[in-house]
Amino acid sequence: MAAVTAVTRWRLLLVLSAAALGAAGAPQPPNILLLLMDDMGWGDLGVYGEPSRETPNLDRMAAEGMLFPNFYTANPLCSPSYTPQEIVGGIPDSERLLPELLKEAGYVSKIVGKWHLGHRPQFHPLKHGFDEWFGSPNCHFGPYDNRARPNIPVYRDWEMVGRYYEEFPINLKTGEANLTQIYLQEALDFIRRQQAARRPFFLYWAVDATHAPVYASKPFLGTSQRGRYGDAVREIDDSVGKILHSLQDLGIAESTFVFFTSDNGAALISAPKQGGSNGPFLCGKQTTFEGGMREPAVAWWPGRIPAGQVSHQLGSIMDLFTTSLSLAGLEPPRDRAIDGLSLLPAMLQGQLMDRPIFYYRGNTLMAVTLGQYKAHFWTWTNSWEEFRQGIDFCPGQNVSGVTTHTQEEHTRLPLIFHLGRDPGERFPLSFASTEYLDALRRITPVVRQHQEALIPGQPQLNVCNQAVMNWAPPGCEKLGKCLTPPESVPEKCSWPH
Amino acid sequence: MAAVTAVTRWRLLLVLSAAALGAAGAPQPPNILLLLMDDMGWGDLGVYGEPSRETPNLDRMAAEGMLFPNFYTANPLCSPSYTPQEIVGGIPDSERLLPELLKEAGYVSKIVGKWHLGHRPQFHPLKHGFDEWFGSPNCHFGPYDNRARPNIPVYRDWEMVGRYYEEFPINLKTGEANLTQIYLQEALDFIRRQQAARRPFFLYWAVDATHAPVYASKPFLGTSQRGRYGDAVREIDDSVGKILHSLQDLGIAESTFVFFTSDNGAALISAPKQGGSNGPFLCGKQTTFEGGMREPAVAWWPGRIPAGQVSHQLGSIMDLFTTSLSLAGLEPPRDRAIDGLSLLPAMLQGQLMDRPIFYYRGNTLMAVTLGQYKAHFWTWTNSWEEFRQGIDFCPGQNVSGVTTHTQEEHTRLPLIFHLGRDPGERFPLSFASTEYLDALRRITPVVRQHQEALIPGQPQLNVCNQAVMNWAPPGCEKLGKCLTPPESVPEKCSWPH
Repeated sequence: MAAVTAVTRWRLLLVLSAAALGAAGAPQPPNILLLLMDDMGWGDLGVYGEPSRETPNLDRMAAEGMLFPNFYTANPLCSPSYTPQEIVGGIPDSERLLPELLKEAGYVSKIVGKWHLGHRPQFHPLKHGFDEWFGSPNCHFGPYDNRARPNIPVYRDWEMVGRYYEEFPINLKTGEANLTQIYLQEALDFIRRQQAARRPFFLYWAVDATHAPVYASKPFLGTSQRGRYGDAVREIDDSVGKILHSLQDLGIAESTFVFFTSDNGAALISAPKQGGSNGPFLCGKQTTFEGGMREPAVAWWPGRIPAGQVSHQLGSIMDLFTTSLSLAGLEPPRDRAIDGLSLLPAMLQGQLMDRPIFYYRGNTLMAVTLGQYKAHFWTWTNSWEEFRQGIDFCPGQNVSGVTTHTQEEHTRLPLIFHLGRDPGERFPLSFASTEYLDALRRITPVVRQHQEALIPGQPQLNVCNQAVMNWAPPGCEKLGKCLTPPESVPEKCSWPH
Repeated sequence: MAAVTAVTRWRLLLVLSAAALGAAGAPQPPNILLLLMDDMGWGDLGVYGEPSRETPNLDRMAAEGMLFPNFYTANPLCSPSYTPQEIVGGIPDSERLLPELLKEAGYVSKIVGKWHLGHRPQFHPLKHGFDEWFGSPNCHFGPYDNRARPNIPVYRDWEMVGRYYEEFPINLKTGEANLTQIYLQEALDFIRRQQAARRPFFLYWAVDATHAPVYASKPFLGTSQRGRYGDAVREIDDSVGKILHSLQDLGIAESTFVFFTSDNGAALISAPKQGGSNGPFLCGKQTTFEGGMREPAVAWWPGRIPAGQVSHQLGSIMDLFTTSLSLAGLEPPRDRAIDGLSLLPAMLQGQLMDRPIFYYRGNTLMAVTLGQYKAHFWTWTNSWEEFRQGIDFCPGQNVSGVTTHTQEEHTRLPLIFHLGRDPGERFPLSFASTEYLDALRRITPVVRQHQEALIPGQPQLNVCNQAVMNWAPPGCEKLGKCLTPPESVPEKCSWPH
């Protein structure tokens, strides 16, 4: 039961599916709100131990909801943020996204923020089930010169309404940008409108202020004990508080399921000024150590999810697709393999389901966690060449034979850690110990089954073309902001994982 | 304003004093309960981000009280636990301990657990202000052979009632010992008796189950996701819950001030099976990095300390002496220099006091924190010789030029870290930056003032004698457990810091 494609490892929550519980006959399904952070680390929330404790609203969300300390993303980076605009590919039409499926249950869907599943017209979110969009197709890198490389457009629905660093300024020197405030207003406005129309809604709020270059609006700049990165976190925390309050004020808190998580671990290459914290975990973004893939995760649904609970369910961001379908009373598509589970039994009945978590980097299965045991089949941080240039995915951390700078194979004798005793992956079990052999004996068949059932996806990121960049997005004519693309020259390209 | 002696760095909370607020005229001062852990790390509590979140009672204590994320011990080890029984010295009579002073306000005082301020008769806790004692003078190391080295005695008040590994068994193989349960009953019994007698009490509950060799009683063994160390934490957490509940059941919760903290960072040399977690901080016990000296700290006083608060006051374990005197309405002794502050303004009025934290190792001032900046004047973990033997104070961590294995001097150009952005001390500020120069300019006069005002104490740990070991503690005759000491041969000795 596994479907892995390059695309599924971009934004897996939107793509895959699972067996739904089928909440049949309910009058109106709950609204669904996914708050997806960008490069925010497990250790960035007060409730996860961040010493400055500057996330009172998220901490309150956890106190009123359920905390998942063992929740994982599907890939240690949002590949597209590292793939430039010349990428030709994007989300294939054959993939059935969550908003597409939710339509069947009458949902209205909006994406606010970063899309990142392709910027060419056929990949547009409104062609993949969303009814509204405010945000951008790529990361807020820049400023670009609009000659060799166009600035990234910001869209309202079908058309661009400006570009980053132009109509949507980001001051790289001061860190000032109003984008989180704009994204907040977009969320509040959408929620209000759907509530007034009494239609169930799906809001995918994918803000990116914590992705370098980090930014915050003026009232938040300089307010954090943690510097500019902390300012960005504080503004997001404040916004989440305002969103939850608005649900309460509108009387729809008890009919709205909210889930908060992040797309990968904190980017330690940007730390400490532009990167966050992975708490006690090893390394960060771009690695398959816990720091790269274990994510902050909070579920909130007053009156349904019991308050102040902690679930040790091993969860995956892929489960949000499956869980959302269950909430909507929908069956997932039956024509494809499914990776996610519904987390509703964990959330509503406190059940614990035994399931593995797989850690991929590119197409390589690097590691697996089963119960408390994590087995590494491959270890790698980055190349010696990068490392010698000062690029460090594990600053201040060095576990001999584990944080390697060559791709080390351990498929025959994996390195195994007990994550309960050793969440920081510092003390591999002795190969000769009974504990090691018992763990390996349980892990081996699970991995074999996974690999046998795996259906490889079609690579989507292997062709580039300067001509496909965001030169002339729809709507550019009205704004007088169309740029002239260069000659079309498709080329093979590849992106390191 | 500083008095530093070898003794003050053992159990500083008991020794020093400060200006009291003087809660004059109050009918009866509040009871005072200090819960001091042994080698428990900042990262070991759920509320501080431990992923397994197995401390519901301590987390509740924090939710009902005030959390101090920036609270420090006075020394990164409880030296006596590393000084064997042949040490001749102990707490000098000239030191005035908290229970001695509290007598003036009518308090009855009990110590439960480890004393560790000298085991010879003149150092007995009942000669230093305590009215009752149940526990031991030294750490629960052993078993010894009672020929070259006697097993450590356990006292009830003036007399021994048995020895570790004999009447008070600790099964090193299974980790089973009932000691935490005994210490819990001693606490509950004392609280009940004082409440019945309507006398204010001071209870110093110094349990040591989290100090290697870690132990737990049968109902807790094997119950933690974190292994045996976690079993010990769970039993202590459960005991703290029972103590707080007993205060509530007896109706004295609102007249009892409770403070929970630890004596130094988690002992990473014992990790992962016998050592805890320092969360996101660098290194552990025996070092002056944050992992060695930043401690979990929770204050609880229902109705007086507001619930669910976090104080970013830089606090020191020395403040507990001063704070306790303030609570009792007492003036501290005026004949000596004082290191601690009263934390009552922070706890009751939410005030923040600007004060430095000094990090000592032996007599060397290794580092200082002022505001968000920590300056390292010396860096050192342990010697190359120890390190090559596999003794590692910073397993999996390696910050170039910081986690050094020689004692590196930086007194002219200290290494400075911003602890808000970089609590893990991984990214020293650039010497050339304005931020560095500004921080140094603020730190320099504070350190100079500290060093000028410093009154060196008399070393207490520099003479050893095999004859002074726990051969024949008072009460041994009744039990038929007196051992014959060897010939008295005093020798100079020294203990590495």
